Amino acid sequence: MNKLKTTHEEEMVRLNRIAGQVRGIQKMIEDERYCIDILTQISSIQGAIKAVGENILERHLKGCVKHSFSVGDQEDREKKIGEIIEVFKKFK
Amino acid sequence: MNKLKTTHEEEMVRLNRIAGQVRGIQKMIEDERYCIDILTQISSIQGAIKAVGENILERHLKGCVKHSFSVGDQEDREKKIGEIIEVFKKFK
Amino acid sequence: MNKLKTTHEEEMVRLNRIAGQVRGIQKMIEDERYCIDILTQISSIQGAIKAVGENILERHLKGCVKHSFSVGDQEDREKKIGEIIEVFKKFK
Amino acid sequence: MNKLKTTHEEEMVRLNRIAGQVRGIQKMIEDERYCIDILTQISSIQGAIKAVGENILERHLKGCVKHSFSVGDQEDREKKIGEIIEVFKKFK
Repeated sequence: MNKLKTTHEEEMVRLNRIAGQVRGIQKMIEDERYCIDILTQISSIQGAIKAVGENILERHLKGCVKHSFSVGDQEDREKKIGEIIEVFKKFK
Repeated sequence: MNKLKTTHEEEMVRLNRIAGQVRGIQKMIEDERYCIDILTQISSIQGAIKAVGENILERHLKGCVKHSFSVGDQEDREKKIGEIIEVFKKFK
Repeated sequence: MNKLKTTHEEEMVRLNRIAGQVRGIQKMIEDERYCIDILTQISSIQGAIKAVGENILERHLKGCVKHSFSVGDQEDREKKIGEIIEVFKKFK
Repeated sequence: MNKLKTTHEEEMVRLNRIAGQVRGIQKMIEDERYCIDILTQISSIQGAIKAVGENILERHLKGCVKHSFSVGDQEDREKKIGEIIEVFKKFK
């Protein structure tokens, strides 16, 4: 549980940084910076957001999914698998 | 020019919304919301960030690239093309 | 088991179709077709390949991962989770 | 023109390799190889297909788009930009 708390805090720090990067993009647009530099910055946000998603997926697999596969019934496990596939489809 | 200003404002509004969504993710994590709901929310941010990127790329093509291809020299045009390919490679 | 066999056959059919689409791209290049039409065709292959990947991931979750989470030891389960995260990172 | 021919040949070679990789996936499925190994192979195909797409996009920018931006009318240029944005949206 302590471990999960730490993970939460890491995610909070990362998300603070991402929110800061989004503000940075706004500043770059205001300052009429070169589009390609803005796009490079945007692709960096994409990487950061994806990393948070991977972290949360890992937590999900280690927590809920493991639990469901150990003690859940067939229906619950099918649901968990369907949800992971959906996330997999939507993620960039 | 007026047109570009409007586009800038649209991007600012969208980026404000994205910053709000990032804060929303933090709230969801604090509230220990279901991971899959958080991941769905994250994929929505990915879509929104990508849309801003597409907007900026369009502006870039209509502005700098068109200008370079009309009046720039060979070297400058090669540079523009190389930059677009780089963005294309990095974008998710 | 019968069910899995059917899934295999579906994947074979899809992969046959993808191989055919790859040959189709070669034909389009030989015929000097418009680049954007070729790129549209390539993005269609990307979608088809991704769909096969999703299918295989689903099979993996329903088979190996479920098995590991039910009867495997801690180390094996950690390995399974690590592998899924890796796939998640690499997939486009 | 000679340069473009070479590029075409390179693309043909790459696409031959991709078609071979697709056949390799079919073999792996027949041999009931470990799903994660198949998925790793699939992500390698995704990378190879994307690289061909980048090549074709580069050729498109250096050829048709440059031509359109130099001598085309406003409508034609808008069309070219719209097409690139569409490709950008669809590509993975």
